[in-house]
This record gives sequence, structure tokens and C-alpha cells, in this order.
Amino acid sequence: MIEIERKFLVKSHAFKDEAFKQIKIIQGFLNSNKERTVRIRLTDSLGFLTVKGLSDDAGLSRFEWEKEISKTDTEALLKLCEKGMIEKTRYLIKSGNHTFEVDEFYGDNEGLVVAEIELNHPTELFSKPTWLGEEVTGNIKYYNSQLSNHPYKTW
Amino acid sequence: MIEIERKFLVKSHAFKDEAFKQIKIIQGFLNSNKERTVRIRLTDSLGFLTVKGLSDDAGLSRFEWEKEISKTDTEALLKLCEKGMIEKTRYLIKSGNHTFEVDEFYGDNEGLVVAEIELNHPTELFSKPTWLGEEVTGNIKYYNSQLSNHPYKTW
Repeated sequence: MIEIERKFLVKSHAFKDEAFKQIKIIQGFLNSNKERTVRIRLTDSLGFLTVKGLSDDAGLSRFEWEKEISKTDTEALLKLCEKGMIEKTRYLIKSGNHTFEVDEFYGDNEGLVVAEIELNHPTELFSKPTWLGEEVTGNIKYYNSQLSNHPYKTW
Repeated sequence: MIEIERKFLVKSHAFKDEAFKQIKIIQGFLNSNKERTVRIRLTDSLGFLTVKGLSDDAGLSRFEWEKEISKTDTEALLKLCEKGMIEKTRYLIKSGNHTFEVDEFYGDNEGLVVAEIELNHPTELFSKPTWLGEEVTGNIKYYNSQLSNHPYKTW
């Protein structure tokens, strides 16, 4: 239930050629407070309710609890969410033993592309694709919960 | 997913003699905002995550979505909740075709006792036990989410 993730900006759209899967995601927040984020996510076929806590000092690890829920329930819960729905396409890209999740945002976050990698421990090594840019791990303004209230276009 | 409920104060403790069941409840809120309440509830053996929306104008009906979750998950999620945990004993009491849920609160809400009845439609009739007091349906200060921030002892 503790996730270790590192987050990066993306320098070019070359990642798209390497993706083995892409998923459309719509998500909203029943609470965007970073101490107890409650997220409702709808993908093509699945729905999820996810609760996240504060990250540790380095911003690397964070409590995360997730439950799959029906598409109908997800749609009903999305209607209750705060203003500022997030829409993005997620590209999955293999890199050594790891998988990068690269999110290309739309709407008020158009222009933002962010890559995440999940690690087994904080100092685990991983290979960096050429398109990987500046690290932004722990930078709260890149949290999706914050993008929902303070979208990229307003920065 | 829409619940119709009426809520009353309680005039005497006579209800306890009529209860066929009592349940200890501890609950906290991942969001106490009444537009999108997210409640974590732990009973003796079960855990629940419940999302509620705003009530209609009369305060009678309210969107409610509930999912049972494991006791371990419930305990982890309770740790993330806002300050102001609610502790109460719920007494279940038959009254005609209906069941009253009477909540006796402890801690910062000590002294407060509230009875609720769930109805099938807003004008449904039901028999009123002698211990039933003033109706407080739709009065937001009696919402558990509000009792968590503004407990009875501070009124």
C-alpha cells in the first residue's frame, strides 16, 4: 500500500513510437487535498476509486489504496467530483525491467506530458529513455489533484 | 443510490429496552464537505467506504454509494481521515414495517442521541414511538460529517 514512484517531464513525443499500449483516462476528485486525495478514475472499460496520503519528505513514496468499481458507479461518482476534471491519454512503454507510464494531458492541461516509473525501492536503478526530461518527483504542482485546481494553462 | 431518510431527536432512553441489536461504530471522513462526503466506517467486524452527495431542498433524499472493505483497509484509511473521529453506539428498533436506527454519540458529541428512519418514498407514513422527539431532517448540523468538525459539545 506504499508506492515508490519517480516523475519526469518529457522532452519529445518520440515516446509514442515505443508505446505498447495506450489508455484514455478521465478522472475527478472527491477530495483534492493532498493529505487525503480521493480520486475517481474512468478508463475505456474500468473504474477505480483511489485514496492517496501525503508523500514522504523526498516525495518518493506515498500511501495508496485502490478499489475497482463498476463503470456505472464510476460515472455516478464522477458527477459528484470537484470542478476540474482531468483528461489524458496514458502511454505504456517498456524500459528494461520497468514500465514507464507517460501521460499526455488535454483540456486545461494541454501541452503537459509527464512520465512516471514505479520502483521497488527508493534507490533502484533504471534505464532512462532519450525522451526523458527533467525530474519533478515530489513537486506538488504536478500532482493530478493539483492540476485539477491549478491546471497547466494557468502556470 | 438515492436514500430517503427522516431524522429526529430522542426524548428518553426508553428506546434501549426496545432494541433488537446494537453496534459500536467508529467513523472518520476523508472529506467532510457536504457536497461530496467520503466516510470511512468501522463496526465490530465490517468496514465501509461511503460517498454521499448533497441532499435535495427538503433534506429528505441524498445520493449514497457504499462499498464494503476489509477491516485492515478500513483501519489504514481511518488513519488518513480528518481530525474529529465519531464514536457512537447504534441501536436498531423495529417500529411497524420500519426500523429505526438510534445513534448514541460519545466523545465530543456525548449527550447527543439521534434517530433515523429510512423510507421508500418521501410521504410514506410510519408509526412514531413514544421516545421520538423533534424532527431535524435536513438540518445540516446533525450530519455526522458536520459533527466531526463542530461537535455537539461546542454548540
